[in-house]
Amino acid sequence: MSEQLTFYFNKFSHYSHKVELALIEANAPYKAHQVDFFNLPEWFLKVNPVGQVPAVAYGGPSVEPDDPSPLSAKIAESDVILEFLADLYPDSGLLPKDPVLRAKVRFFINANAKHIEDPLYAFIRKNEPYENVLKGIEFIQGLLEEGSDFTVGDHYTIADACITPHLARLKTITEHDIGNFPVGMGYKLGEELKAPKFAKFMKYIQRTLERPSLKQTYDEEFVITLFKAFFPARAQ
Amino acid sequence: MSEQLTFYFNKFSHYSHKVELALIEANAPYKAHQVDFFNLPEWFLKVNPVGQVPAVAYGGPSVEPDDPSPLSAKIAESDVILEFLADLYPDSGLLPKDPVLRAKVRFFINANAKHIEDPLYAFIRKNEPYENVLKGIEFIQGLLEEGSDFTVGDHYTIADACITPHLARLKTITEHDIGNFPVGMGYKLGEELKAPKFAKFMKYIQRTLERPSLKQTYDEEFVITLFKAFFPARAQ
Repeated sequence: MSEQLTFYFNKFSHYSHKVELALIEANAPYKAHQVDFFNLPEWFLKVNPVGQVPAVAYGGPSVEPDDPSPLSAKIAESDVILEFLADLYPDSGLLPKDPVLRAKVRFFINANAKHIEDPLYAFIRKNEPYENVLKGIEFIQGLLEEGSDFTVGDHYTIADACITPHLARLKTITEHDIGNFPVGMGYKLGEELKAPKFAKFMKYIQRTLERPSLKQTYDEEFVITLFKAFFPARAQ
Repeated sequence: MSEQLTFYFNKFSHYSHKVELALIEANAPYKAHQVDFFNLPEWFLKVNPVGQVPAVAYGGPSVEPDDPSPLSAKIAESDVILEFLADLYPDSGLLPKDPVLRAKVRFFINANAKHIEDPLYAFIRKNEPYENVLKGIEFIQGLLEEGSDFTVGDHYTIADACITPHLARLKTITEHDIGNFPVGMGYKLGEELKAPKFAKFMKYIQRTLERPSLKQTYDEEFVITLFKAFFPARAQ
């Protein structure tokens, strides 16, 4: 692909993180530009009128990221961008070729939003029961194929890119007990996950977190600092 | 495509309706089987363990719909099935070939869920302000290309299949004033939509509702009967 691709992101955003993983896994050439969404620059509204990251500017002349060209296509919404990258790089394996396997990837992406994202951040931010996280993990674990390295087959797809940012944060909060929940609850969730019934899921976590793409993009110290700053007044 | 495709649906479900439209627009051969979700048959859990329609069984031997084969692939979630059909029928135009245009279709599908589905059924079922419906319509209207017949270009895509069931129901409730809102509010919403500022959207509604695929699949009398049965005790 010879067209330029500019990736607008913020380190704070796990939605940005999904796209970053897919870009790296596809070995896509791109320019990355961090957008300060606490102080949104006005030019960014030319990239995404609703002001959200991640967003991508594709094609058009090669310009500075903070001076976007009206000639590039602008693409927003993390799941839309993931599909876009799979389309741009059909041989990357980000999506399999077979329609049934592609449907499995997409079913997993939907399931991840409902069964991992929603309950995990409800626990971290609002102290909703971690049992919901465990239930979600059970559902997701049921989708993982026995003997496959990744969610669908042995190749990293956008399904893996979609869930990996959350798995990294799940590991961090259970190992460092950081979140808007009573002290010790993060550790407790971590202990629960050591039960044999979650073995398949935990192996999957380990595999995804070992990927160079994750190591290159996940700054755990930053996430710890950030979460501590966001949840300073949690129940003791 | 020579593989068998069985479509499990319920007439009550607008999610099923999306898939039915796409099947017809793709000129796909399929068997349709209505599932009674008020009295869910046990065999249906072999098709979708969570018991929801729409669902599709694809491939495997040709069997009776109520005796699904373990050899067919089972696909659930309406948006996943729409993509699956676009993959199965790449020349149907259900998705354009160009990655940027495909991203536009998918962005529209996401936007439809948030800006049309959510506020429309919140108005119909829970009497939430119809101003939210109007706001959503304004957003969606902004995505419609000037001079194009459909959401993205001049060909019917899964973006159109996705929104059409809601447009049909929107027309019905504004023309027949049926919903869980005070008498007259449905008519009032209909009047608001006649304002010049909604002209582009209204033309788009008209175009989609004129499609043979919609006429063949939308039983307005049934929807009226059903909505009246569901909202008998609305404020007078």
